[in-house]
Amino acid sequence: MSRGPVVIEVTRGPLVESRHEGIAAVVKADGTVVDSWGDIDAPILPRSANKPIQAMAFVESGAVERFGLGDEHVALSCASHSGETRHVETVRAWLQRIGLGEGDLECGVHAPRLQTSIEALAREGLQPTPAFNNCSGKHSGFLSTAVHYGEPTKGYIKYDHPVQKRLREVMTDLCGLDADSFPHGIDGCGIPTLATPLRSLAQAMGSMADPSRLASRRADAAIRIRKAINAEPFMVAGSGRFCTRINEAAPGVIQVKTGAEGVFCGILPTLGVGVALKMWDGAARASEVAMAALLHHLGVLPAADREAVLTPPVRNVVGLLVGEMRPARSWLG
Amino acid sequence: MSRGPVVIEVTRGPLVESRHEGIAAVVKADGTVVDSWGDIDAPILPRSANKPIQAMAFVESGAVERFGLGDEHVALSCASHSGETRHVETVRAWLQRIGLGEGDLECGVHAPRLQTSIEALAREGLQPTPAFNNCSGKHSGFLSTAVHYGEPTKGYIKYDHPVQKRLREVMTDLCGLDADSFPHGIDGCGIPTLATPLRSLAQAMGSMADPSRLASRRADAAIRIRKAINAEPFMVAGSGRFCTRINEAAPGVIQVKTGAEGVFCGILPTLGVGVALKMWDGAARASEVAMAALLHHLGVLPAADREAVLTPPVRNVVGLLVGEMRPARSWLG
Repeated sequence: MSRGPVVIEVTRGPLVESRHEGIAAVVKADGTVVDSWGDIDAPILPRSANKPIQAMAFVESGAVERFGLGDEHVALSCASHSGETRHVETVRAWLQRIGLGEGDLECGVHAPRLQTSIEALAREGLQPTPAFNNCSGKHSGFLSTAVHYGEPTKGYIKYDHPVQKRLREVMTDLCGLDADSFPHGIDGCGIPTLATPLRSLAQAMGSMADPSRLASRRADAAIRIRKAINAEPFMVAGSGRFCTRINEAAPGVIQVKTGAEGVFCGILPTLGVGVALKMWDGAARASEVAMAALLHHLGVLPAADREAVLTPPVRNVVGLLVGEMRPARSWLG
Repeated sequence: MSRGPVVIEVTRGPLVESRHEGIAAVVKADGTVVDSWGDIDAPILPRSANKPIQAMAFVESGAVERFGLGDEHVALSCASHSGETRHVETVRAWLQRIGLGEGDLECGVHAPRLQTSIEALAREGLQPTPAFNNCSGKHSGFLSTAVHYGEPTKGYIKYDHPVQKRLREVMTDLCGLDADSFPHGIDGCGIPTLATPLRSLAQAMGSMADPSRLASRRADAAIRIRKAINAEPFMVAGSGRFCTRINEAAPGVIQVKTGAEGVFCGILPTLGVGVALKMWDGAARASEVAMAALLHHLGVLPAADREAVLTPPVRNVVGLLVGEMRPARSWLG
């Protein structure tokens, strides 16, 4: 069934001050739409929300075993991490293990996410390096796969490099549409991001939740990735982050992943479904509340922390509670 | 005339990746609506976008002359500044001049806006203080007025303190509605923010653009504030900021002011109108493009920088152009 749009409200005092709209789909591996809100045939750019799918080509390649990598590396290959010390050091050691270095990462450099991390660097007189980029784990997975197959590592972010071709092949298999036919833009980290109908993105997540129709090597990779996300939730995001909290609280039940511009995906193995949502305005704050509300609606949101993620407080500078975010009554309220 | 909503698009490659909707009004001092988009009778929280109106009570009090203050202080009293060195040092010296200190500011402490400022503090082993708060200039204006009138300074952020009562009296005069009857929330800096119909907020800005029907002391204050915003555009915002660039480029013609949650106001003296807009999702990025598009539509957007503010580029981490923001064709495209 299809219904009206996802609506998230932001209140301040007696007023709904701001309002976010979006689309969402809950889909099985075979493409059955279990539930949906808004026009789920609209193509959207998944951005980082499909990193667990992109990690499939890395894990199924055998590079994980070849280089003696563990859950922390598989989780990092699905991560938009905060550039905290453990993220950065693990990426650096990983690159060394495959005979490469930070100079081989083509994702660029940006500051770490937390103010405390920025301050710590400044106090030591240091600058961030490519390992601090939130995508450095994913790119390390790309590089590991290229090294494993004996491919040139330079240019691994280009549309026609074998690394990127393999991502499209996996996507085609998981969502049932030819990903080579999808238009694409360039993501923040430089790789192509494919314009994917939201329904198909959710189906691909559904295929990771229930990989029974996939080839066995690929199905094993899906299960391995799910396990790693739950085993190393810090590696997928970082201190205090929504993905880390939710993935930590519900091992075996939930693997969620955020993306830029208001996209959020989820793998729900016990229900055998995938979830994908996009807030049209690109607001991360709304995508988190929407994902929490969907998980609650589907009966899997962990009890601990429930209020904090379903109706997060809005506080002012001195910490006073001045409003809240919430799913609108017109949606799932 | 009233038309469809304000629509701002964000593209990436071939796709409109995200989309923002809002409302806007262009209104004269007498309440005549010159142009509007969407439901302009909707009450919105002006947040910091009405700081020029809030500065009226300070400037018309005589505190500016009493304490020997200049354009830089009047501009700061309208500011959401970035907490750069000149902002912070000017606020500190100002408070000293009225016999107070940072401990009297009730706005709270947050980090300065720019990463370079955060790093500079960390390198010196310092923490931000209340003067770094983007509202510290406005609060210094509040405190100056209280000292000038011999009122208690403690609690000047409370709804019933004379400082806040005067803000409502000015608002009532400028917009023609009883501001004491407006519901209110608490702003980021702790003061009440009044639920104001967008049309009335634009009318109040129109009264600052054309203050001919105001009492002479109040009319003089409006003109003084307009002059200070153009004379000290850095003080209103900071390095690279939209308000600073636009107010610097069009002295006598444009005084714009941003607010949290996607609000933007403008005073256009040569046209004798005020402008107010609110993006429903609260996105600052969209409110800037919308204000640029309105200024262009009204024929006052300065030629220099026009493309940069009307269709700002979207770049990825390495600086590659991957998309743009733009007013939608369905709006003013």
